[in-house]
Amino acid sequence: MDPLAGHLNGPAAPTRAPAPATTVAAVWHGGTSVALEEVRVPEPGAGELLVAVDLATVCGSDRHTVSGRRSAACPSVLGHEAVGHVVAAGAGAPAAVGDRVVWGVTVSCGACDLCRSGRTAKCRHVRKIGHEPFDAGWPLSGGFAGHILLPAGTTVVPVPVDLPDTLAAPAACATATVMAALEAAGSPAGARVLICGAGMLGLTAAAIAADRGAATVVVTDVDPDRRALATEFGATDTRHAAEPLPAVDVAVELSGATSAAASALAALDIGGRLVLAGAVTPVAPVAVDPERVVRGWLTITGVHNYEPRHLRQAIDYLAASRERWPWETLVSPAVPLARVGDLLAGPNQRVPRLAVAP
Amino acid sequence: MDPLAGHLNGPAAPTRAPAPATTVAAVWHGGTSVALEEVRVPEPGAGELLVAVDLATVCGSDRHTVSGRRSAACPSVLGHEAVGHVVAAGAGAPAAVGDRVVWGVTVSCGACDLCRSGRTAKCRHVRKIGHEPFDAGWPLSGGFAGHILLPAGTTVVPVPVDLPDTLAAPAACATATVMAALEAAGSPAGARVLICGAGMLGLTAAAIAADRGAATVVVTDVDPDRRALATEFGATDTRHAAEPLPAVDVAVELSGATSAAASALAALDIGGRLVLAGAVTPVAPVAVDPERVVRGWLTITGVHNYEPRHLRQAIDYLAASRERWPWETLVSPAVPLARVGDLLAGPNQRVPRLAVAP
Repeated sequence: MDPLAGHLNGPAAPTRAPAPATTVAAVWHGGTSVALEEVRVPEPGAGELLVAVDLATVCGSDRHTVSGRRSAACPSVLGHEAVGHVVAAGAGAPAAVGDRVVWGVTVSCGACDLCRSGRTAKCRHVRKIGHEPFDAGWPLSGGFAGHILLPAGTTVVPVPVDLPDTLAAPAACATATVMAALEAAGSPAGARVLICGAGMLGLTAAAIAADRGAATVVVTDVDPDRRALATEFGATDTRHAAEPLPAVDVAVELSGATSAAASALAALDIGGRLVLAGAVTPVAPVAVDPERVVRGWLTITGVHNYEPRHLRQAIDYLAASRERWPWETLVSPAVPLARVGDLLAGPNQRVPRLAVAP
Repeated sequence: MDPLAGHLNGPAAPTRAPAPATTVAAVWHGGTSVALEEVRVPEPGAGELLVAVDLATVCGSDRHTVSGRRSAACPSVLGHEAVGHVVAAGAGAPAAVGDRVVWGVTVSCGACDLCRSGRTAKCRHVRKIGHEPFDAGWPLSGGFAGHILLPAGTTVVPVPVDLPDTLAAPAACATATVMAALEAAGSPAGARVLICGAGMLGLTAAAIAADRGAATVVVTDVDPDRRALATEFGATDTRHAAEPLPAVDVAVELSGATSAAASALAALDIGGRLVLAGAVTPVAPVAVDPERVVRGWLTITGVHNYEPRHLRQAIDYLAASRERWPWETLVSPAVPLARVGDLLAGPNQRVPRLAVAP
């Protein structure tokens, strides 16, 4: 049997020629300046993969970078939520030519104390997909390009043939980060759950919490349209972020707003856990009352990026829940890569997420 | 063999007559006013124990109550760290006449949602040893008395015959709370550990962290004498609480000071955990930077009182570590119960802990 048969019958068949000499990349030059540039395609070395990008989605943190709210290497190729096909594989690489894959946002050394302690996302020598300088040896590091080179130490996960590109691409940041956040939150089974922020991550978290047996799922957002959308993703109750909240056992803060973190903390009942995952840019501090934390056995814990298992969980979950929730409404049809600059300049935390296809 | 033989040969032999008609209790009437009063001794009902107190220690929170920093029922019999002998047992009680025991600080219903979820310390109907009103049906609720009545739902743990009263009594608050705090902190094996506060709890925490294989144990305190004492209980480094701190993996805040909590939080390395257990009175809030918690995968968690397993762990640990650390220096020889008012009026967080014997 042709090993590519499954892929060829799938929704994102690899039609381009494998391993071209050059590819096109959307190079960010600061501000909203993005230029399509032709880039030489390297031959993957040991453990490396060359992947033809089929579709990439625009994450809120790409917008944070472009707007200056997050410091980043410049110039660089942004984009860290994508799906593609392997077109060349170095010796010992974690996938084979023809495989349809997603890949993690962090590239870890595997040898430092943090990698060895299971925190590969915080590797002392971490490199990040879509965050590295264009001119320092790894130009094809982002998803907003025709091809991406995945270094050794990148988590690579195969994608089931029937999972559309628009569902698979966000797995690499939104869905996997939610998996990490919910792991930190503990089991939601039977729990009263609060999700702060009804963006891509919040909607995903609400759906997973519902699937895992949460007693209630309250979703807060400032935007009425997003609150309405939350009811389609498992929310049993939605509120404006400034409204009073019921007592909850678990809260997951994905909006990044200090006020949301403070409200969520105030809503925790005895033994409650607040997971902070949204605040990835400088924000005002939260005033935490030590006595309340002590007497309430409260926990506040942070999650940034995720571990390899969370990306596998993300793909498994999306494949399993594909019919259960309207995931397809969360990502727009892809536009050509040439338009990525326009997408990056738009307002933050867009739902649906915007997508480009090289 | 006489079932009491072990006890009779031990250091705290029960010499008083069992189940007298009346006993003496040090009744706290507010401020530093404590009066010895004769109290009728009840016959224990189902699940209840009447215990003759052999020795009780004065905890910092007794002083908080007397100084007004903590709200409390008044009048009441204070004292929640004690050791004694069972002199009468109701049907189905968790110990037998003659048993030498310590008992937990919380009396739980066993039926509410929190009890059923394993948080008996936060039982919806919790009653607390040494914290209940003298005139509401349970006058003998505190350790500063000749006898105490332990209701059904009290954790009761037998005490090995060779564990002296002065070592056993603090188990019921100081040692067991430290066990709960260290459980929340995760394994200290190989970790860089920070202990804030070199009182009874901090010294105990330092010793346990050292015993469990901590790579380093930094202990902070404002008092140079207590810092010196910390070096006898496993500290590898001691610092004034205002000095700069090294990066740590685990921090346990036992001083109750907001500044200590803030310093400890700032000292956490990637994945670090801060356990707050000292703040049991109103204090200023800690300013927590959400982005730092997120990017650092930091955790802040509170612990108040403890679960039954922690009291068992406390007694087991004290018995096992008796020769390893100079525990006997941490509790003064007992003075008569009549002097408990003087002890309660002294400065807080005394080391050595003061003790009374009825």
